[in-house]
Amino acid sequence: MLALEERILTDGKVLPGGILKVDGFLNHRIDPKLSYDMACELKRLYADAGVSKVLTIEASGIALACMTAYVFGCPLVFAKKSKTSNISSDVWSSQIESFTHGNTNTVVVSKEYLGPWDRVLIVDDFLATGAALLGLQDLVHQAGGIVVGAGIAIEKEFQGGGNELRASGMRVESLARISRMTDDSIEFVH
Amino acid sequence: MLALEERILTDGKVLPGGILKVDGFLNHRIDPKLSYDMACELKRLYADAGVSKVLTIEASGIALACMTAYVFGCPLVFAKKSKTSNISSDVWSSQIESFTHGNTNTVVVSKEYLGPWDRVLIVDDFLATGAALLGLQDLVHQAGGIVVGAGIAIEKEFQGGGNELRASGMRVESLARISRMTDDSIEFVH
Repeated sequence: MLALEERILTDGKVLPGGILKVDGFLNHRIDPKLSYDMACELKRLYADAGVSKVLTIEASGIALACMTAYVFGCPLVFAKKSKTSNISSDVWSSQIESFTHGNTNTVVVSKEYLGPWDRVLIVDDFLATGAALLGLQDLVHQAGGIVVGAGIAIEKEFQGGGNELRASGMRVESLARISRMTDDSIEFVH
Repeated sequence: MLALEERILTDGKVLPGGILKVDGFLNHRIDPKLSYDMACELKRLYADAGVSKVLTIEASGIALACMTAYVFGCPLVFAKKSKTSNISSDVWSSQIESFTHGNTNTVVVSKEYLGPWDRVLIVDDFLATGAALLGLQDLVHQAGGIVVGAGIAIEKEFQGGGNELRASGMRVESLARISRMTDDSIEFVH
């Protein structure tokens, strides 16, 4: 998506350790018009997929996911990071390793809000190693639902997670796919 | 706002300890159309306030705040809960006590994204003791900006925070104001 790539080139900063800082428009300060335009592009890509629910994980995925659910006319559910190790029996739970923060989170979704009746589009701001998508897919599968695919703002393709998920059979659509980043250049896959 | 009050009566559950569970449409599963309608009502209330930025706190305020920023045509900034006690010099930081979770969080906003040029509408899903609003107001004041007011989905008026803030001079608009909750009834202020 050209508008997103241009915004990454204008406002993104490459930090040491393979981190792309886009907190000026995507995950700290958010440009809601760009989020809306990204949501419309996801709607175009998944128009015929029968999406009944959008699923994301708190916190930085929520803005894009909420816009996406709005455009699809379906509910959004966000998986919560659990603060306790005691997981109650009324939630689906999974483990997600965070590339950015270097820790592991237990994420939960109430069983009331994710079930076998669901055709789920997973939405997130970033795709790197794929750990978050795997964890969210695991929640949907525990619930007996179907993952129709993933809609991602920025994929760091060079970290491999997206292509592994595609090889495993998941449909993954990323609105900007970065093949290579250096201190002074960002290259996209088209 | 009638549609919100009706939804609270239909889907809300009163739990022991003064907790109102509305995670079926507001803060776990989200109804994005209702979020959009609430955002439009906040736009109507604050139409002439010159809002240049919407500010909220992760995670459950983000969906409504993103819709609100979209309707106002301005950026959204969400304050992040800091995981470390080492606060860097490039952020504004404040302390917020959580009524629901019984703990205190340090919240931060990058100095780049909040400054003296800002006229800020603070948006959140709940207002109870007012601790979150006070913390967010503190961030705006540190930055030298102006708080034009707060836009809240549900105010638990009986907890007093909203009226204390109003008495202190803050404009607080809540789309549903609950005066009294029991196991089997919820009463609103009009």
